[in-house]
Amino acid sequence: MRSLIPDYLAEALADVEADVSGEPAGYIPELAAADPDRLGAVFATLDGTIYGAGDIDTEFTIQSISKPFAYALALADRGFDAVLAKVGVEPSGEAFNEISLEDETGRPRNPMINAGAITTHSLVGSPDLDPARRVTRVVEGLSAFAGRPLSVDEAVCASEMEEAWRNLAIANMLRSHRILTEDPRAVVDGYVRQCSVLVTARDLGIMAATLANRGVNPLSGEQVVAEPVVRQVLSVMATCGMYDAAGDWATQVGIPAKSGVAGGLIGALPGQLGIATFSPRLDVHGNSVRGVSLFERFSSDAGMHVMAAPPSAPSVVRSHRAMGTGADAVRVIQLQGGIRFAGAERIVREVADQVFPETTVALDLTLVHSIDDVARRMILEVARRLTLDGHDVHLVDPDSILPDPDPGEGGRVTVTDALAGPISPGRTPARR
Amino acid sequence: MRSLIPDYLAEALADVEADVSGEPAGYIPELAAADPDRLGAVFATLDGTIYGAGDIDTEFTIQSISKPFAYALALADRGFDAVLAKVGVEPSGEAFNEISLEDETGRPRNPMINAGAITTHSLVGSPDLDPARRVTRVVEGLSAFAGRPLSVDEAVCASEMEEAWRNLAIANMLRSHRILTEDPRAVVDGYVRQCSVLVTARDLGIMAATLANRGVNPLSGEQVVAEPVVRQVLSVMATCGMYDAAGDWATQVGIPAKSGVAGGLIGALPGQLGIATFSPRLDVHGNSVRGVSLFERFSSDAGMHVMAAPPSAPSVVRSHRAMGTGADAVRVIQLQGGIRFAGAERIVREVADQVFPETTVALDLTLVHSIDDVARRMILEVARRLTLDGHDVHLVDPDSILPDPDPGEGGRVTVTDALAGPISPGRTPARR
Amino acid sequence: MRSLIPDYLAEALADVEADVSGEPAGYIPELAAADPDRLGAVFATLDGTIYGAGDIDTEFTIQSISKPFAYALALADRGFDAVLAKVGVEPSGEAFNEISLEDETGRPRNPMINAGAITTHSLVGSPDLDPARRVTRVVEGLSAFAGRPLSVDEAVCASEMEEAWRNLAIANMLRSHRILTEDPRAVVDGYVRQCSVLVTARDLGIMAATLANRGVNPLSGEQVVAEPVVRQVLSVMATCGMYDAAGDWATQVGIPAKSGVAGGLIGALPGQLGIATFSPRLDVHGNSVRGVSLFERFSSDAGMHVMAAPPSAPSVVRSHRAMGTGADAVRVIQLQGGIRFAGAERIVREVADQVFPETTVALDLTLVHSIDDVARRMILEVARRLTLDGHDVHLVDPDSILPDPDPGEGGRVTVTDALAGPISPGRTPARR
Amino acid sequence: MRSLIPDYLAEALADVEADVSGEPAGYIPELAAADPDRLGAVFATLDGTIYGAGDIDTEFTIQSISKPFAYALALADRGFDAVLAKVGVEPSGEAFNEISLEDETGRPRNPMINAGAITTHSLVGSPDLDPARRVTRVVEGLSAFAGRPLSVDEAVCASEMEEAWRNLAIANMLRSHRILTEDPRAVVDGYVRQCSVLVTARDLGIMAATLANRGVNPLSGEQVVAEPVVRQVLSVMATCGMYDAAGDWATQVGIPAKSGVAGGLIGALPGQLGIATFSPRLDVHGNSVRGVSLFERFSSDAGMHVMAAPPSAPSVVRSHRAMGTGADAVRVIQLQGGIRFAGAERIVREVADQVFPETTVALDLTLVHSIDDVARRMILEVARRLTLDGHDVHLVDPDSILPDPDPGEGGRVTVTDALAGPISPGRTPARR
Repeated sequence: MRSLIPDYLAEALADVEADVSGEPAGYIPELAAADPDRLGAVFATLDGTIYGAGDIDTEFTIQSISKPFAYALALADRGFDAVLAKVGVEPSGEAFNEISLEDETGRPRNPMINAGAITTHSLVGSPDLDPARRVTRVVEGLSAFAGRPLSVDEAVCASEMEEAWRNLAIANMLRSHRILTEDPRAVVDGYVRQCSVLVTARDLGIMAATLANRGVNPLSGEQVVAEPVVRQVLSVMATCGMYDAAGDWATQVGIPAKSGVAGGLIGALPGQLGIATFSPRLDVHGNSVRGVSLFERFSSDAGMHVMAAPPSAPSVVRSHRAMGTGADAVRVIQLQGGIRFAGAERIVREVADQVFPETTVALDLTLVHSIDDVARRMILEVARRLTLDGHDVHLVDPDSILPDPDPGEGGRVTVTDALAGPISPGRTPARR
Repeated sequence: MRSLIPDYLAEALADVEADVSGEPAGYIPELAAADPDRLGAVFATLDGTIYGAGDIDTEFTIQSISKPFAYALALADRGFDAVLAKVGVEPSGEAFNEISLEDETGRPRNPMINAGAITTHSLVGSPDLDPARRVTRVVEGLSAFAGRPLSVDEAVCASEMEEAWRNLAIANMLRSHRILTEDPRAVVDGYVRQCSVLVTARDLGIMAATLANRGVNPLSGEQVVAEPVVRQVLSVMATCGMYDAAGDWATQVGIPAKSGVAGGLIGALPGQLGIATFSPRLDVHGNSVRGVSLFERFSSDAGMHVMAAPPSAPSVVRSHRAMGTGADAVRVIQLQGGIRFAGAERIVREVADQVFPETTVALDLTLVHSIDDVARRMILEVARRLTLDGHDVHLVDPDSILPDPDPGEGGRVTVTDALAGPISPGRTPARR
Repeated sequence: MRSLIPDYLAEALADVEADVSGEPAGYIPELAAADPDRLGAVFATLDGTIYGAGDIDTEFTIQSISKPFAYALALADRGFDAVLAKVGVEPSGEAFNEISLEDETGRPRNPMINAGAITTHSLVGSPDLDPARRVTRVVEGLSAFAGRPLSVDEAVCASEMEEAWRNLAIANMLRSHRILTEDPRAVVDGYVRQCSVLVTARDLGIMAATLANRGVNPLSGEQVVAEPVVRQVLSVMATCGMYDAAGDWATQVGIPAKSGVAGGLIGALPGQLGIATFSPRLDVHGNSVRGVSLFERFSSDAGMHVMAAPPSAPSVVRSHRAMGTGADAVRVIQLQGGIRFAGAERIVREVADQVFPETTVALDLTLVHSIDDVARRMILEVARRLTLDGHDVHLVDPDSILPDPDPGEGGRVTVTDALAGPISPGRTPARR
Repeated sequence: MRSLIPDYLAEALADVEADVSGEPAGYIPELAAADPDRLGAVFATLDGTIYGAGDIDTEFTIQSISKPFAYALALADRGFDAVLAKVGVEPSGEAFNEISLEDETGRPRNPMINAGAITTHSLVGSPDLDPARRVTRVVEGLSAFAGRPLSVDEAVCASEMEEAWRNLAIANMLRSHRILTEDPRAVVDGYVRQCSVLVTARDLGIMAATLANRGVNPLSGEQVVAEPVVRQVLSVMATCGMYDAAGDWATQVGIPAKSGVAGGLIGALPGQLGIATFSPRLDVHGNSVRGVSLFERFSSDAGMHVMAAPPSAPSVVRSHRAMGTGADAVRVIQLQGGIRFAGAERIVREVADQVFPETTVALDLTLVHSIDDVARRMILEVARRLTLDGHDVHLVDPDSILPDPDPGEGGRVTVTDALAGPISPGRTPARR
């Protein structure tokens, strides 16, 4: 059977191909000379499968799509406090090249506008890096997101620097507010190099998938940045990624996204997918015309909106019964599926305010495939409380799906492989 | 066992209780007279369980928390186009009472600022409703979200009207732009009545849970508004709900939310939970001081951030084997869990570019608990393509988890209850 | 001989008549129905001569041209402090109907924008006037400027009120800031009546001439408002009178001016002339197209720019000589012309650091036609110092051009009609 | 007798000396180190007399006071159109260092804010000047205004360049809009040199007097720039010279003015006086605290407000009678004083619509001291019309106060020294 996803992508491209509105960015010759008809789209799954159609291996400069990734690197390298002290997270409702500094402090409103991105660039790496080594750190960081070594397009870079007046204006303004503390020209030079990194739609798909995959590159398996960093980056992309059309995008598409002036556009759907498109024709906001159309279609066709509730899972309590009789009687609660807060609440409700005659209460996790941290803590608290009520609590957990099963003060659980009995005495955790 | 969730809520309240910063809103005597020490919090699950601690049955006026619900009603009553023509969806980055109209059109930036909310009020119900009946429709609509009949606090309403200068200013400005087409005073009067509806934290919890539950009230089971309306409302809450601190909230809390000047605060976590808090002390943005603290804690403790990827589910392909031999050989692909786009893609990948010697290919859905629409369409397309490749395709679907199993042009599936054979000939769908 | 000024005006009108660009204001039927081809111009001298050409007796509504006069009335009735506390004097650089309130206080930027004009209207008369009597005061005040009883066009007034949404918005906003303390609708109603007062170009010429003439109506001789009020009004007209084109007007025309949406335009050249034009076709700023052209021409042809230095007067010291000999010798300094600070300085210089052998020093004012207050004080100080140096000081002042000739502490002057001797002993002022 | 003006100035300084509020500018060490107690004031008359009190010979840097003079040089060197194409004339209502560029074009709002002043600097001299020679031209131009060779404080200049981030930001922004077409750093460097020119209060007094004196330096007699340039500069100073307090200054002081951050402040009263003060303590607007107080006092004491009408002159028609009888009868109209438009109108009125039986009409200019251009043209037109009515027109003009006495088409005048007869046949002008 031929896979239907490439077909779907090909069909989507065919539908938008007729739209020849918009023009490639014209402010430097290298961008103006881009073939306006190039068109490609990529879906990158969290286990590293790439689906593509059209021009997915054509190289172009990453431009503003570098912004969320450099922001991730800065957060990782300097910590949240240091970065937030210099760059805000509020939507500006303004175009990408508005200065948008806060009145008193001169702090840029967010890292997606140029002022914030220039500042962010200066915050990558340790504070003592010289400009050249900081660029190296940025390029290596972007490469880690892409899963292959990326390089800078020197011709684009040189040409951009010749027309970088506005960015130099912004950097000098930031310098006057002490948001930048170095030579503004050197920072802009580094930032322009960051924007001139060459990528393909395939690379961008992987980079987006790394964000969707909690920071783990699906190809290399490398944890490029930590999960809280990814959450911060996605949040900022969701509110500030599409400039002055942020609200339209948030309602109609609903995928955290970022566009670049060379025609790239990425979206990351947390836990599901990385998406990238490439088409150099831009609309008045500087976003790729056909890229925006494709994302609208993907969101609509595939139900990818972050505000769409996932379909209901069945109750995590698959069954609840008493087994055996007398002293051997066991209260067995069989759980299933993935358990987050709402599922854990359901478990709590199953046992709260109940009096079980059986001494042993077994929580059977055999059919459970995942437990997040809050759910883990809630289940252990249930176990602790049942212990305090006089029960022996068993966790049937053959796949060790619940890590570190210590219920804490006064609690005690016996972990078993099956309902029959304990896996081994050693797995009864001691209170540490 | 005593449920731990009320304990958790009580503990959370105890922790924030010491914070006596901020003051109740003081612009009218009724609000200024609020007991500043009132404090309550509610978790409302999507199956209608209410967890509460503190003052969850104290009545107070809903104020701006009515805005997302009235927006939902307007979208439901007039349609998206009519509402979007008059109220935008862009974050304004400004305080709630800024006028924030678009330059040319006078269209308010979004429905969460007063200008947008006044306009939204005027768009509830059919265009020919008189002001009084429109208020009735609004109150009934809010009641449907709450699951009980709500009423207006006439004293607050009268007092608000006496100080409604700024809203009258906004309404007259909207009238001058033809965004409003009626008497501005009548619209403001209706809007003030909307804001004066009395609710409890318990009500707000249910209202939030209705949003989290795709528009279905967990108590009454009523589909109050359609799912696309809910998605739109949640998107706007996410970007515009917390006024000029929208970005802080989006990054730190990450729950679509809305606050009211009487001290209420709601959050809706799609597919998981409705949350409400009540504490009348306000910060400089007009948000409840302790409410904000509670939400920060809930988000952090319970991993409720919308940009946090859910924990990985196991592969939807549980097993894949050939059963039997010769003409009876069947290729069985056993699926499990909930299937959305990413899961369906995994199924596609399992069969794409493969040649199966067996004539019959069975997709066993027995352990699948949910399939969303895109996944359903993808599975059916897989079935269609396998048919075209010469296979007999069986769907083992004892619980009819996949509705309307028609693979379309050239495809054919046989639906069965078990691997053994078809459930009934009648369930083999014909091409319509 | 036929006067050339009407010819000049007629010729100027003929030159601009061909310009049919622009349209009458269209927001109410009464203004839209104005004959767009009406055209008139008036020069009103400070002694009450009216030169006119074209439609100078056609009535139209005064509209915004009422603003500087109502501002004058408010300053006169309430004092500078009370008015400045509620309305600023800063150019807003914005269109007439921008709200332009100061951030914190809500104080309108200046009295020429609508927000400031509405506030100004509320400040005319004593604070206890009811709205109707305040309108009476305003109409009577405008009539005093015009020198004839003016009346309100009730049809325009009623029509304006039907479309007064924006002004109602502004008034409610002002009410919310406590800049207005009354019912906003009543204030707007009064303001609209003020704007609906009927005038002719002839009336406007006299009104402008009253401003140019230090507040004295050239026809009636009435001091309508005091001179400091006029100075304030002219200053505000100079910086804020032409809205967002204030700087263009200040540089190119240089005459304090004010336009109205019904086609009127006035200019006041302090000490020289009042000018008015009438032509209903408006440009995009809402100023009369042909009125602006006429003023540009008048300024250029007649050297009327306030920043153009007047032609040099001859030295105020016409001659300086010693007359007679011995004890009868007199030092005579003959002065001439009008004396202000610069002229008085010249007198000071004539006598400073000199030692005159003559006992008597006579300052001969016979050819002096005016002395302003600073010059008067300087001349008396010269007299006082000469007295202290041992001189007898004579002022030869047959026309009593120098009032109250008391040189103060230690000084003494003898006022005479002619060089020969004292006019009368009685005119030697005693130290009071 | 001792001159009272130095006494007045000394007394004024003594009164403000007690005010030690404010601090010298602190952004560079050289300014921060200024002696905060320095205080001086200068009155410079249009015939070159300097009155001074206090520290009038202390050198300090001219800073922003260079702006109006550089603007004058740019207008003189490039013409109005070229300068207005790049720098507007609208008040910005903003602080001096706001960027304030027009939205579309990037044109600075006016030449008094830094963006406009940097652009203005780039427009001094011919377009092909290199930056160094442009600075030479600027310094020479400022020297011409001051009447002595000025020089640059190299230490201040170097220090300013080290902190010129904001000006570099502005210059790069201007470069991005093609308002500047050169290297932004070079332009800022030149502008900083312009601001670092050393002056004394005495110099500034002369510079201001040059503006007050139609561009003629009272000391050197040099016409530094043409009169229309001066009018433009004074107009812009009047509306934009005091930044965000422009309206306060225009109403309360009413003297076109400009301040500098080193403590200087100038005012030019057209046709009367140049004023300068020096006191380094600055208020929050960056204006000299004591300088502002002194100007308020000068304006109030000396009636120097540009919107104060000059005192009325006597009628320009001193007498009007018929002399002689029969064929020798002459109608004699004796004029006096300075004649501008309003005076000429009075003459017109004297003869218009009259029928004089005398053949000869004599306009006696003996007592007239000045006639401006419009008045000259009006008098000649009167003469022409009287000729056409059949009169012989004589101008009695012993001092040739009326230049080029050609009444044009059909007119004819005989110029005489005295009423008796023609000065010479040669002075009867022929029609050219």
